Amino acid sequence: MIHDSVDKAQKSSQNNEMARKQQEQQAMIKDNLARIKHKIFVLSGKGGVGKSSVSANLAAVLSKKGYKTGLMDVDVHGPSIAQMLGMTELLDITPDQQRLVPKQVNDNLKAVSVQALMQDKNQAIIWRGPAKAGMIQQFVGMVDWGELDFLIIDAPPGTGDEPLTVVQTIPEALGVIVTTPQEVALADIRKSISFCNTVKLKTLGIVENMSGFKCPHCGESIDLFMNGGGERTAKQFGLTFLGSIPFDTGVVASGDQGVPIMFQDEETPFTKAFSIVVDNITKQL
Amino acid sequence: MIHDSVDKAQKSSQNNEMARKQQEQQAMIKDNLARIKHKIFVLSGKGGVGKSSVSANLAAVLSKKGYKTGLMDVDVHGPSIAQMLGMTELLDITPDQQRLVPKQVNDNLKAVSVQALMQDKNQAIIWRGPAKAGMIQQFVGMVDWGELDFLIIDAPPGTGDEPLTVVQTIPEALGVIVTTPQEVALADIRKSISFCNTVKLKTLGIVENMSGFKCPHCGESIDLFMNGGGERTAKQFGLTFLGSIPFDTGVVASGDQGVPIMFQDEETPFTKAFSIVVDNITKQL
Repeated sequence: MIHDSVDKAQKSSQNNEMARKQQEQQAMIKDNLARIKHKIFVLSGKGGVGKSSVSANLAAVLSKKGYKTGLMDVDVHGPSIAQMLGMTELLDITPDQQRLVPKQVNDNLKAVSVQALMQDKNQAIIWRGPAKAGMIQQFVGMVDWGELDFLIIDAPPGTGDEPLTVVQTIPEALGVIVTTPQEVALADIRKSISFCNTVKLKTLGIVENMSGFKCPHCGESIDLFMNGGGERTAKQFGLTFLGSIPFDTGVVASGDQGVPIMFQDEETPFTKAFSIVVDNITKQL
Repeated sequence: MIHDSVDKAQKSSQNNEMARKQQEQQAMIKDNLARIKHKIFVLSGKGGVGKSSVSANLAAVLSKKGYKTGLMDVDVHGPSIAQMLGMTELLDITPDQQRLVPKQVNDNLKAVSVQALMQDKNQAIIWRGPAKAGMIQQFVGMVDWGELDFLIIDAPPGTGDEPLTVVQTIPEALGVIVTTPQEVALADIRKSISFCNTVKLKTLGIVENMSGFKCPHCGESIDLFMNGGGERTAKQFGLTFLGSIPFDTGVVASGDQGVPIMFQDEETPFTKAFSIVVDNITKQL
């Protein structure tokens, strides 16, 4: 019986300690979010539709327009943002050792990726759901974001632990749904719309990516992944269509080189189309 | 004290019941796996590299060659296999109500997808990790697979709950890693290789998908996602390179139409390249 009581007392003290830490984290999350005007959550149903590329270029354009912008990559298993922004070093820690310092990409753009916490970039993070949820909450609460106009959140595709945790941690976030035009991708995007409705995530609309392509040799149009499906789906579900972005091999190359194509000054069909999408997003805010 | 004892007795009886059910499931899994000669687990680091398309076409070729083949889609959030195989109906249940009957695609090919369990195809499955792990174990243990030469398993990209559960449930599975050639994809594939090493999953090699493309108008070559990265990575890590498969808009269309392109008899650069990959897989077994 005495052992029982000691056990119970220890457990209760551990529970109190955990509850205190959770409250502390919740307070830090609330405090951080209060200093960020707009939170944009870039979602996709299917992988490989260019969600990270849209996130990185959206953040690039907003920072070029003078907005204080943060970019948060919470894809533990395939963190592309670090590569796309040329982040090669580990993140620093604040002098009081309490917070992570985001990487300063330019005067207006800060970014955080799980990749920038790892010594060995090739190592897999073999985490189950609860660990990923904890990481996302830390990225929102323990990163020293400061005052921001925009925080862009890039989560893995689908409707599992990571997107769910983002929505639960940042309930005021606004969704931007990225798809490619073919039916296999649209089937998944319909699930993303169902997800948004179920978890009450407001959406700014749908972007159709990799929509059309011009042969660099003969200039003729090629529909790599069909076309028009994103606009059709937006209409069908009463969502805003934010625009079509063409496929551009320069975007693939710029992602590999670590400089988002929207940082470049040259005007191309891609940059023109992308600017329209950004305008269609910002004019709703 | 009496209440305590009753509580304990109830909990202990519930625990016994759960343990019994788990043992029963383990026995069914073991029994099912014993009747399947080769289990091939198709993995990718990044989404959208064509993992489901490779899985469906690999299953199609093996079934055409006369092998009894099963195809299992465990991607809860983006189950593409059902669409790619034209599975529109719900799965049947065995007369004893104990098992799921896989969809018979042709004499030699059976398939199961989480999509074929849902009344509303557009509904999102908003599940956290543990629920997904349970579903995967049920698909291995509770589906009436019968005698098979091959079971092809298509899991979501990354190194999280689903791939981990597949490896833990089917430890004898052999991995086939699919990538596209650009660095952003290769960065993720290096994580997949690290995952395979950590969980001791033997791999048959790497497939480079969407590697090269011929303009349908002028016939000139276009590297949509760069090229050669898959072969380089295989060499770097001492893995077998299974071959390069070109991008083909016909594959996108056939996926939408529900008939894998490898079921068609016409010979194209895609079908030739894909046949080489399949030969490079089967000759290792």
